[in-house]
Formats: sequence, structure tokens, C-alpha cells
Amino acid sequence: MVNQQYAVIGLGRFGTSVARRLHEAGHDILGIDVNEERVEDAELYVTHAVVADTTEEKTLTAVGIRNFDCVIVAIGNDMQSSILTVLLLKELGVKKVIAKALGKHHGQVLDKVGADWIIYPERDMGERVANQLLSPNVLNYIELSKEYNIEEILIPSRMAEKSLRELDIRAKYNVSAIAIVREGDIIISPPPDQIIHKGDLLVVIGSREDLARFSNIE
Amino acid sequence: MVNQQYAVIGLGRFGTSVARRLHEAGHDILGIDVNEERVEDAELYVTHAVVADTTEEKTLTAVGIRNFDCVIVAIGNDMQSSILTVLLLKELGVKKVIAKALGKHHGQVLDKVGADWIIYPERDMGERVANQLLSPNVLNYIELSKEYNIEEILIPSRMAEKSLRELDIRAKYNVSAIAIVREGDIIISPPPDQIIHKGDLLVVIGSREDLARFSNIE
Amino acid sequence: MVNQQYAVIGLGRFGTSVARRLHEAGHDILGIDVNEERVEDAELYVTHAVVADTTEEKTLTAVGIRNFDCVIVAIGNDMQSSILTVLLLKELGVKKVIAKALGKHHGQVLDKVGADWIIYPERDMGERVANQLLSPNVLNYIELSKEYNIEEILIPSRMAEKSLRELDIRAKYNVSAIAIVREGDIIISPPPDQIIHKGDLLVVIGSREDLARFSNIE
Amino acid sequence: MVNQQYAVIGLGRFGTSVARRLHEAGHDILGIDVNEERVEDAELYVTHAVVADTTEEKTLTAVGIRNFDCVIVAIGNDMQSSILTVLLLKELGVKKVIAKALGKHHGQVLDKVGADWIIYPERDMGERVANQLLSPNVLNYIELSKEYNIEEILIPSRMAEKSLRELDIRAKYNVSAIAIVREGDIIISPPPDQIIHKGDLLVVIGSREDLARFSNIE
Amino acid sequence: MVNQQYAVIGLGRFGTSVARRLHEAGHDILGIDVNEERVEDAELYVTHAVVADTTEEKTLTAVGIRNFDCVIVAIGNDMQSSILTVLLLKELGVKKVIAKALGKHHGQVLDKVGADWIIYPERDMGERVANQLLSPNVLNYIELSKEYNIEEILIPSRMAEKSLRELDIRAKYNVSAIAIVREGDIIISPPPDQIIHKGDLLVVIGSREDLARFSNIE
Amino acid sequence: MVNQQYAVIGLGRFGTSVARRLHEAGHDILGIDVNEERVEDAELYVTHAVVADTTEEKTLTAVGIRNFDCVIVAIGNDMQSSILTVLLLKELGVKKVIAKALGKHHGQVLDKVGADWIIYPERDMGERVANQLLSPNVLNYIELSKEYNIEEILIPSRMAEKSLRELDIRAKYNVSAIAIVREGDIIISPPPDQIIHKGDLLVVIGSREDLARFSNIE
Amino acid sequence: MVNQQYAVIGLGRFGTSVARRLHEAGHDILGIDVNEERVEDAELYVTHAVVADTTEEKTLTAVGIRNFDCVIVAIGNDMQSSILTVLLLKELGVKKVIAKALGKHHGQVLDKVGADWIIYPERDMGERVANQLLSPNVLNYIELSKEYNIEEILIPSRMAEKSLRELDIRAKYNVSAIAIVREGDIIISPPPDQIIHKGDLLVVIGSREDLARFSNIE
Amino acid sequence: MVNQQYAVIGLGRFGTSVARRLHEAGHDILGIDVNEERVEDAELYVTHAVVADTTEEKTLTAVGIRNFDCVIVAIGNDMQSSILTVLLLKELGVKKVIAKALGKHHGQVLDKVGADWIIYPERDMGERVANQLLSPNVLNYIELSKEYNIEEILIPSRMAEKSLRELDIRAKYNVSAIAIVREGDIIISPPPDQIIHKGDLLVVIGSREDLARFSNIE
Repeated sequence: MVNQQYAVIGLGRFGTSVARRLHEAGHDILGIDVNEERVEDAELYVTHAVVADTTEEKTLTAVGIRNFDCVIVAIGNDMQSSILTVLLLKELGVKKVIAKALGKHHGQVLDKVGADWIIYPERDMGERVANQLLSPNVLNYIELSKEYNIEEILIPSRMAEKSLRELDIRAKYNVSAIAIVREGDIIISPPPDQIIHKGDLLVVIGSREDLARFSNIE
Repeated sequence: MVNQQYAVIGLGRFGTSVARRLHEAGHDILGIDVNEERVEDAELYVTHAVVADTTEEKTLTAVGIRNFDCVIVAIGNDMQSSILTVLLLKELGVKKVIAKALGKHHGQVLDKVGADWIIYPERDMGERVANQLLSPNVLNYIELSKEYNIEEILIPSRMAEKSLRELDIRAKYNVSAIAIVREGDIIISPPPDQIIHKGDLLVVIGSREDLARFSNIE
Repeated sequence: MVNQQYAVIGLGRFGTSVARRLHEAGHDILGIDVNEERVEDAELYVTHAVVADTTEEKTLTAVGIRNFDCVIVAIGNDMQSSILTVLLLKELGVKKVIAKALGKHHGQVLDKVGADWIIYPERDMGERVANQLLSPNVLNYIELSKEYNIEEILIPSRMAEKSLRELDIRAKYNVSAIAIVREGDIIISPPPDQIIHKGDLLVVIGSREDLARFSNIE
Repeated sequence: MVNQQYAVIGLGRFGTSVARRLHEAGHDILGIDVNEERVEDAELYVTHAVVADTTEEKTLTAVGIRNFDCVIVAIGNDMQSSILTVLLLKELGVKKVIAKALGKHHGQVLDKVGADWIIYPERDMGERVANQLLSPNVLNYIELSKEYNIEEILIPSRMAEKSLRELDIRAKYNVSAIAIVREGDIIISPPPDQIIHKGDLLVVIGSREDLARFSNIE
Repeated sequence: MVNQQYAVIGLGRFGTSVARRLHEAGHDILGIDVNEERVEDAELYVTHAVVADTTEEKTLTAVGIRNFDCVIVAIGNDMQSSILTVLLLKELGVKKVIAKALGKHHGQVLDKVGADWIIYPERDMGERVANQLLSPNVLNYIELSKEYNIEEILIPSRMAEKSLRELDIRAKYNVSAIAIVREGDIIISPPPDQIIHKGDLLVVIGSREDLARFSNIE
Repeated sequence: MVNQQYAVIGLGRFGTSVARRLHEAGHDILGIDVNEERVEDAELYVTHAVVADTTEEKTLTAVGIRNFDCVIVAIGNDMQSSILTVLLLKELGVKKVIAKALGKHHGQVLDKVGADWIIYPERDMGERVANQLLSPNVLNYIELSKEYNIEEILIPSRMAEKSLRELDIRAKYNVSAIAIVREGDIIISPPPDQIIHKGDLLVVIGSREDLARFSNIE
Repeated sequence: MVNQQYAVIGLGRFGTSVARRLHEAGHDILGIDVNEERVEDAELYVTHAVVADTTEEKTLTAVGIRNFDCVIVAIGNDMQSSILTVLLLKELGVKKVIAKALGKHHGQVLDKVGADWIIYPERDMGERVANQLLSPNVLNYIELSKEYNIEEILIPSRMAEKSLRELDIRAKYNVSAIAIVREGDIIISPPPDQIIHKGDLLVVIGSREDLARFSNIE
Repeated sequence: MVNQQYAVIGLGRFGTSVARRLHEAGHDILGIDVNEERVEDAELYVTHAVVADTTEEKTLTAVGIRNFDCVIVAIGNDMQSSILTVLLLKELGVKKVIAKALGKHHGQVLDKVGADWIIYPERDMGERVANQLLSPNVLNYIELSKEYNIEEILIPSRMAEKSLRELDIRAKYNVSAIAIVREGDIIISPPPDQIIHKGDLLVVIGSREDLARFSNIE
């Protein structure tokens, strides 16, 4: 892995979380915020931290922002600062600018001024929570296409202590079992005579409709 | 699917996103906020919306909060209101209370006063963004255990136009191909002579270490 | 008496009053407040005083809060700080945490996060004042049980210059005289022929109902 | 008991507590506050409640304040309003005015403008809490004079299961036992052969010095 | 003239005006204000100037306020500070305390806490302006008693170029001429044959009613 | 006396005082303020009272300001409103505009925009208070010219019980006695054998220097 | 001239000035502002005026903004509202959007989100004022190209009372006289024997350098 | 050109624009603002910059304001400071004071206190924008008199590729062609057989009415 140069502007909860994870993975992180206290607190999880107003070109130049591979604009609630910062970063030639948007219109402006990737943390987490509530047995999922998902499902109690052959879920529900997760161990491509136990998680692939029918059986 | 009764307290971006998704899925949603304007805007995506201060017991009783299967406390920045609301909901006997936390200590207090599920949108989205940056070829993933992941990977250009047999990724990288995603279609358990093309996404299962080696080849 | 280590967090009127009294009794007191001026003023009646934000774990650790026998959280009006401070103190292992509550729900949250003793100064003093108004002859009292009190009563003018035998209060009112307070002197278990004078205080024991009848005679 | 006319000005926690207790005892209470919401909430525990600014003479006249036997000025933090209100009440001829003071100088001004009784809730509760901490076995007490107290003491474990005669506390500690409180029942003037059990509370009378020696034995 | 020690607390327009006049007359002035900028500006017209909060006893003691012959409390709009300052000054034994009042009730409280002289600048200047408007010919006046005034009157045009004997104002209006002011010169007890000219000012003594009749003739 | 039409703009303490005095004298007063509460309170001492922003020409026109003989601009602390109001009043043709100034520069601007008479209440009252302190025996005075005053003086104790002839103040101090004020009665041009008593006030005329010498004798 | 439909958003000084001028020229103007008072005042110089928040799509749709030929976004100081409004207007398909920018970066963002014409009133007027100061004889000018100007010049006193032929300004200064402005009348293409008088304005064309030499002769 | 001494008070957008332009032209500029940050930023385009409150005479004297040829008062929104500053500048004898006005009444007061030239940036730019909208083909103009303009007009498409003689605009529209601007070059007094092309700008002189007819032909 090549060491990369990241800058994170805005050291609130979202920015902190990004910076901390990237730093743990061994990358150099420059943390920037207008708030002195936040910058002090950041010193635990960034390589350098500076107090700076990123809506001023001279400030961005002074910290050498051009040398960074990627800048994450995680400014909290100040839409204007977020927009001006992204504008300046793209003008100064930063290749990859990721920006957090508060809402739809903010996201559209960020797009117009050149942001490369736009994140909506509140909206996206809200959807994940709702999805979880809608399918409480589905612990995790990947949307493969408009139609198909992979889902990690807590097996319904009725299925416990039966073999995959007996259950015959491909025929009955039109979904395929990819793996079983049992107390932290993984059985990849489980054989047909594999017995599944209470508490096992089943990783299945199929259309969302079929998966919903399957995961909602009691 | 049984129609469920949800209440969402706090109609900011997170609460709105939860409410909208649940409502689209056909459930009854009661939206509550102290801010009149937000309540008006909410009428598009909730069943009922009321202006109310949920830190007062009489208010919660007046809206019949006891009859709801699940209450989501999505209060934005007012930690005190969030805590008092969760306390009152559990006292009034609401079975499932989901609450959004601003940070670690807020989450701990929510836990102590009885919240059943605690969400950290900013922190979790921050980690997802960082993970994406760390493994740019990995578009999506499920953590199956401490060691194993399923990942959806954009195939490295060097692999294009070869069959799975030629690539022999199980032997070389110790990961298994579960599915191929090609322009929205899914090939589940692809056969060994399946040719993969530029732009295909490969769904693979394996240990995180092996997957990292595999997804980072150029 | 063993010298004890107390910390008082929040140096408003309540915290100051606690700290001053404990300090006069010869104990070591650490005073903490976020307000610099208050900390300066506190130096007259505490052993050490520091400016610190007690909602941050590192701050509490830095002042060695674990070594204190008892911490009094006397934070004035900031409910959130009061809750987080108590949470952190208990997490850090402080054995005895006393906290001032603004109202009922605040008190409930303090209880949930682990406070050992919760004080309601405004409510309790309000009740004492009301009780005093209701029984103006009763100068002081102890509630022994749900039914029984000891009360210090200004003797009704009609009783003056009579002996206890003449008054025969046990037979007439079903209350027992324990002591007489006369110009600062105490006559414990006064003999039956003791004459009581105008201005004497009588300490009596009995049921609240009997005592009310007795103390309200003109 | 004669029904009395009380007015409580300032419906914060202290004022509420006074008003509620007096109301429960069957008296008529007029509640007054400048804050509309507080006045609405007060309707549960007062006879009448009005929104009014009591620093204006015409307001006080309009509510007929002259007809009240006693007015409690429980104004929270606005020292100026508290002073002007007391001034006006005494000018209008109210016989008994009780006022809450924030601190020493506030109390002095209240005295000069004619307040009949001045209360310091925070200071007094602070002292009570400190006293409790200093003598943890003393659950309650009355100060009879500068020297003498009556105290309700949790009996030291060493004394359990002995008779009063065996303990001979009058000789050893120079204090007299007045009563024993056992699980809510009261034994007044207990006989010498009375056995005291673990968990009993002993009501004793004596000099403070002697009582301290007695209550601190292990 | 003996050099006197004055302190002026509150260096707004009123305090500044008092201090400047006393200083010009050769007295030592200590100026005190909570506002640093005002204290700096004051250095031109006081002997010493300090930044201090006069609602704290230790502050007043520190500047040696006991040694001043007279203290003027000219605090602008903060009624509470004005009251507490006067209270403390009298407690510390200052012999003469002059205080500016905002209105009637403020003045009453100042009186109760011991102020020796109370000034109402806005009210008094308002009355002077109104009086001037009501009697535009009266340039200045002294109220000698409830009934009698001395007034300095611009002579009505009809009277010009006549002798006092001709005018016979004592007989006609029942007022006495004391002096004539003519272009800055004074003619005391003018003789009967003194001619008065246009623009002369006549100083007269009489009852207010008679003077009003006299000063309003055209 | 002809009934005059006055308008008073700004109903603070100064404006109220002017309006009340003019109204008592029987004139019609229009009171104007931007503050609704003040306008309500003014109804006791003005003929009409309106809530209006006088910095807008249309407002002034709407109340028919042109018809007023004299307008008093008593606006408290908002210098800008005071200046714009005076400008508009003069533009609209009001003949006599009296304005209160906060300080010297404010007064200069008011003069430039056309104010006819400018009042400095705080400065002028400050000077009166200082003068009183400087000559404590002088109860009141009129400045007749740069050199001459009439003063009302509390007679020095040494002069009591002597006749004016004995005192011979004209020869000794070069001042003339005009009148004696004795318990509310006035003796005009007192004869030489008039005895003056302790507590009498003497009205004298003379040069300021001579008067100062005279009034400061003990 | 065809009647056009204009909307002006933001009715401060700039927006008011635009709207008033367009309205005087006979066009229909819709005025929009978030401030109610401004909207009321606007009714004198617009066809319709509404209170509305233009950062919300539904608001813009409700007023039928699509039907307007041209929208002027004259929002004062709220950069964020200005940006979002322009974004929405272009999204809704408004053909011509003119926007006022506070500064350079604001202007850049407005450009990115689609504004068709961007105005900088403060900057441009500042430059005009400076230019006027630099060439006090130049009353007005048009910049024809990077090099050439037309300028209206107050003739230097030395040139007065001479004919154009005598002055021979083309030869001497390389500038051409286009017209003479004399007391409001215009002489176009003045003949060579035209005498110019003191106070005449000469309209000349030439390079900026030559014009500067010409206009600065004394 | 003689180097002149300018001072610019108020370094907002307007003041900055004036100062920058004058500085580029080689003059000495003193920049003054109450805001420290603005003063720092100004150092790029002024000769000296100081933080100062210009409503105080001593401040203006301290910076030697009397020595400046011309002072521009570009204070943003604080009308009172703007007025007092102009008053003081004229009192101190500054010969030329230019001041920015927010609106009509502000401008009138500035005039009364002595400002020599008053600028209304928002109003004037608003009018320029409106004029441009009203005559979109007119790119620039000079108002020579109440009736006559010089205008720079984008030629109507119908006129392209014709000679001036063919077009005969003097006869048809009563306007005279002064110059043609073609891709940055200027043809002064173009001959009759000059062909005009698409994209040429024609500089014409005439009455406003005639010019409007001419510039609006399609």
C-alpha cells in the first residue's frame, strides 16, 4: 500500500471519523478546522492539525493543499463555507474532492462547483436504519443491482436443525445460499447436507422480492 | 407484511430519511417535532405530523405514544431533549426505542436510560467513506466476522477478458467468486469458463487480508 | 475523625455552601468549575480549585478524580453537563457521587447513570417553607416515620405559667414532652412539676395528627 | 384550620414546591409569573394563576394583592424584580412577605425594603448535605440551642442486639435515648431492658460534642 | 476651600459631568467604572481612575472607599448594581452617598438602602424644559416656596423704553423688580426712573400666579 | 394662555417628564414611540398616543406633524433615529424642534440638521449636582451674567439671631439681600432691623466670587 | 417596446433601484423578499409583491417563476440564499438570471450554478469613484476597447474662448472632438471655427494615454 | 501626475475597490477600519493601514487626517458612524470629503454635515442594470444632457453587411455615427462607404428618443 496524503477539512464527528480510520490505516492526514479546540483534540488521530479558514485562498495555499491526493470537506453546518471551500480546492487543482452535503440542493451546488464525490450521512444512515427495521432478520446487505441483493439473514427458527437439502431454499424461495456464519466462523459454499443451527446466519443471493419473502418467514 | 405503527421524533435530515423510507414501504408514521415549519414539510411523507415537546410526559401521553410498536428518537443537536425523551418513552412502556447519538458519551447515557438501539450516523458514514477510500475498487462489503468479508469489487484492468479458470483467483488469492454483476444483470455462481469483461463487478468472499491483496492489484 | 477527600464540581451557591461547610470541618476539598472567576473566589474555602470542563474524561483523569472518597456534582443549570459528569465519574470508579437535580426527570436520569444520592434543593426548601407556614408554632421537626414526628413547638400562650402536670398534655393530646428549651438551656425529660414559661419551646413526640391539634391551639 | 389566602410570585421550582404543599393542605393559592407557560402548568396546583409583571404597582393592585395574608416572592434569578416586588408589596400594605434571596447582599437589600422572612434555599440545602456527609449515621436532627441537638442516629453495628442498660449510653456518652424507630414503628421513652436491633434508629438528645462522639463510633 | 475627596462610580455622561466639574474646582476625584475604555477616557478629568466592579465588597475596600468624604453613584442603567453599590457603601461607613435613580421605584429602594441624596436627571431636566416652553419669556427661576418665585424675564416688547415708575409693575402685577440684566451688566435694585430697553432682562420676585400674568403679557 | 399643540417623540423618562408637565398645564400633547408598551402607559398623561417609527416620512405625515407648534425629540439612545427624525421634521416644515442630545457630537449633528434647541440632560444635571456639592449652603441659584448670580443660601450658623444691620453683609461681602425665606413665607426687601433666625434662607445678589466667600463662611 | 415580465428577488437598495427603473419604463415587475415590511414598501414601484423564501423550489413554482423573461437576484448579504436561488431558477428553466455578487468567489459560484450575468455593485462603483478622482476633469466615459475611450471632459481653463482650429487638439494630443455640451445643448461634430467657452464640456475620442495627457492639462 | 494623499475609511467592498484603484494609479493611500482583520487584508493595496474608530476626534488627529487631500468615507452599514466621521472630518478642516450613503435620508444628513460628494452605489448600479435590460443592444452610454446621449450599440442583424450610406441612419433615425468598434479596433468618424459587419459596435450620438428607436430595431 502506498502512503497517501489526505486532508480533512472540518473536524466534527463525520470528519473525525474519516480521519481516524484513514490514520489507523497508516496514511498521513492533515486536519483543518476554524475551531481551535477541535484542532487540539484532533492531534490524537491526525498527522498535523491546523486552525485555518478554508474559504480564503491564501490559507489553502499556505498549507500546500495542492500536494494532497484527496481532500475531504467535512464542514458541518455552514453551507456557504462548504461551497466556497470546494470551489477553491478545485480551482487550486486538487484532483479528488469529497464533500459532505446537508441536503439535496447543497449537494447540487457542490456538484456544480466541482466536487468529485458527495456524501449525505444523515440521509443514508436514515435509510439503512429504516431498511433494518423493515427486515429485522436481515443483518446486512449489498445492493448488487436494481433487482438483486446479497443478504446476511438470521435464520428463521423454523429452519433450525435441518440440512440445506431438506430446506431446499433454492426451489422454494428462488434464493441461493452462499455461506453460513456460525459463531464467527465461515462455511463458504456449504454442501447440501450441511445442517444449520439456531443462531446461524445465512448469506444468500437472490432478487429483492424473493429475499423479502424468505427473510420474513417466521 | 403487517402494517406497523412507527413514530419518528425529530424531523431533521436523519429523521426525515427514516420516516420517508418506512412510509414508502407502506407503514403508518407519526412525525413529531418542536418546530412548526418542519412538521408542515413532513406532511408529504408521514401519516400524521404534530408539533410537540417530547420532554414532557403529558405530551407523549396525549399523542398515545404507548400504542406505537417502535419509536425512533432522531433529535438533532439537543442532547438533553434526546435523553429526556428516551427516558420518558421507556417509562411509558414503549417496547422498542431507537435513538440517534451525537457521540460516545451521549450514546452511553442513552443506553443507561433504556434505548434499545443506538445509531451514530456521522461516525458510521465517516468510517464507510474512509473504507471506500482505502479500497477504491471495493464498491460495497459485508463484514461476516472479525476475519471474513464479502466484497463487491471492480475488476482490475489486468483481469479483463480472461476466464475465471485462467485467473484462478482461489488458488492465487484464496478468495472465492460468488457472483458477477454485469450492467445490472447478475451471474450467480459463475462457471469456470466464464469470461469477465472490463467494467464487471466481482462479488468475492474471503478473509479481509486476502481480499485486500486481491482488490489492490492493478 | 478521619480527613476525607471531597471534590465539589460546580461552585455556585449550592456547591459553595457544601464546600465551605466541609472545609470548615477540616476536610480537603477540591473545587472545580468551568468559570474562572468562580474558581478564583473559591480559593477562600477550598483546599485546591481548578478551572475544568468535567464533561471530558481526560479532564477528570488529569485531576485524579479516582482518589476522591466522594464527589458532589453541584452543577447549576446545565442538565447535560450534570448528566455527562455523573456518567463519567461512575465510569471512572468514583464510589460516592452526590448530584443536584433541577427536577424530577433530571433526577431520574441521574439515577440511571449511577448517582448515589440525588438532591433537590429548590423543591425541598419549598416544602420546608410551606410546612413552616402551615404550622407557625412548629419551629423545627424530624419525621420519624410515616406517622410520627418529633417537633419543637413554641408553647401556646394559654399554657404559660403552668406545670406539665396541670397541662397533662399526654392525656389531652396524646403527645409526650421530651425536653424544654429555655433561653438556650435545655431541660431534658422535664419532671411533671416543671413550670413552663412564656417563650419556652417544648420538644414533643407524637403522631402528626395529634401534634397538629396540639401545636395549633391558641 | 382556617383557610388562608396565599400568593406565590415566581413559579419556578421553589415557588412551585411552596405552592403545591400549601395547596395540598387545603389553602387558596394565587400563582403569578411573567412566563405564560409556567402559569399554564401551574393550574394543577394553585387556585388561580395569572401572567403578570409584579414590578408594576398597577398589576399588583389589579390582582387585589392587599387581600392576601401572606405573599411568597419566589422570583428565580432576576434580583431587580425580586427587590422591586418586595418594595411594592410592603408599600401596598401586605402584612407578611417571604422572599427568596440569591445571596447575602440580595438578602440584605430584601431586608431593607421590608421582607419579613428571607430564605436561602441553595445555601441552606448545601449545609444540610454537608452535615449529612460529616455525620453519615445521623439521618436527621434538630438544633435546640447553640450546644444541644436532638439526632436520629442509625445505631452502630457494635451496639446491635444489646439492651439499653448494657449499652449505658448516658454514662458513656452523656446522651439520652428518647425513642427507637423500628421499621416504621416508634417506641417512645424505651425501657432500660429494651434490646436494640441492627437497623434500628435511635433518637437521642445531648450536646453536639457528645453526640458526635456517639454517632461516629464504629 | 478645603480639598475634598470625591469618588464617582459610573463614568457615563452624568458621572463624567459631575466629575469634570468637581475636578475643575480643584478637588481630588477617584473615577470608577466596570468598563475599561471609559476609565481610560476618564483620565483627563479625574485624579485617579480604576476599573472595578463595585458590587463586590472586597473591591470597594481595595480602593479605600472609606476614606472618601462623598461618593456619587452615577451607574447608568443597571439598577441592581446601583442598589448593591449603595448598600455596600453605607455598610462600609461612607458618610455621604449620592445616587442617580432611573425612576420612582428605583429611587425608593435607594432611599431604603441608605442613599443620602437621590437625583433624577431625566425627570428633572424634562420638567425644566417644559417649564421653559410654558413661559418662554422666563429664562431662569428659583422656587423660593410653594407660592413664591424669583424669575429672570425677557421684558415684553410693550414695556420697552419706559421707566419703572411709568410701568408701575408692583401696583399692576404685584411683583417687585430686583435687578435688570443688560448686555451682561447688572443693575441691582434699579431706581424708579430707570428706563428699560428692548432686550433687557428683568429679575422679579412675586407669587407664581402674579409672575405668570406678568411674564405672559405680549 | 393659548392652548398649544405639542408632540413628544420618544416616551422614556425625559420625554415622559416633558409631556406630563405640559399636559398638566392644559396643553394638547401627542405622544409617539416605537414601543407599544410605552405608548399604552403614556395614555395617562398625553392627549393622544401612537406607536410609530418617526424615521419614515410617511409616518410623520400620517400623524399630521405639520400642524404642531413644537415637537420635542426625546429619543433615548438611538442616535441615528434622533438625527433622521429631526431632519424629517425640519423638512416637513415644523417650526420649533427641540432635541435631546447624548453628547457633544450628537448635539453638533442635531444642530446641522436644523434642531432649534438642543438639551443635554445628563451633562446639565451632573453640573447642577456638582455645583451643589461645591457650595452646600447654596440651595438654588440663577446665573444672571458671566459674573453675577442670585443665590438662595442657608444662613451660616454664626449669623443667626442678628439683624441685617448688624451683619452688614453689603459692606463686608459686597452682596445685597433681596429676600428672606422663613418656613415657606417670603420677606421681600427685608428692612435693616430684620432679625434672621437659624434655618432662614437668604436670597442674595452679587458677583460669584463675593457670593462664594459669603456662602462658605462657617 | 414589448411589455416584459421581470421578477426581482431581494428588495434592498439595489433590487429596489432595478425594480423602480424597470417599472417606470412600463414593464410588469414581481417583487419578492423574505421580509414582510420590505414587501409592503415595494408596492409603490412593483406590479405585484410577495413575501417568499426563494430557496425553496415549491415557493418559486407557486409564483409561476417559469413565466418570467428575466429574474434579477438582488439578495443582499446572504450568500447561501443567493446561490441556492440561482440554482433553482436555472433548474426551473428561467432563461435569463442576473445575480448580484458580494465578491469574487461568490461571483464564481454564481457562474458555476448558471447565472447569466453577474453584477458587483460595490466594486464597480468603487472603481468609478476612483477613476473620477484620478481624472477630475473627466465627467463620464465609455471604454470602447482595451485602448480607446470616449470621454466627456470639462475643458481646461487655458482653452476657453478659443476656436477648435486654434486649439488644434487632434495634432497636439491625437484626440478627436465629437461634440460640445453647452448648458444642456449639444453641438454634434462641431465645425473648426467653433469657439469653446468656459464651462463647456468637450466629448472626445482617442487612446486612453492621449486622453489622459489631454484631460490633465491645467 | 502629482502624487496625492488619500485616506479611505471603511475597508469593505466599496472602500477596498476605491483604495485598490487609486493605489494602482500610484497614489499614497491610508486605509482605516475598526475591524482588525480587514486592516490586515488591506495591506496588499494600501500604503498604510490602521485600526481606528473614526468617530473619535483624537483618533483622527492621531493619524494626521488634516494632511490628506481627500478622504473617502466608505463605512458600510453603520449610519451613525458615517455621519459622525464626516462631521469630524469637516470640523478638522479636511477639504474634500466623499461619503457613501445607504439611502436618501442618510445622503441628506451627510450633505448637512458637510460631505462634498455623496455616492449611492447600490442605487446607481441598480439603475445601470435596469437601463441595460431596457436596451439590451446598448452596451454603454454617456448622458450628455437631459435629452442627448452617446451610446455604444450592438448593430441590429438587419444592418449587417451594408455601408453607412445605404443605411442612411442620420436621415432615417436622426442619429449620427461617431465610430465603429470592430474586434477591439476603432474606426473614428467612419466614411460613408464603410461596410459594417455582424458583431460590430456602432457609437452613435442623438436624442434619447431617437436612439431608443434606433437601438430597438430588430
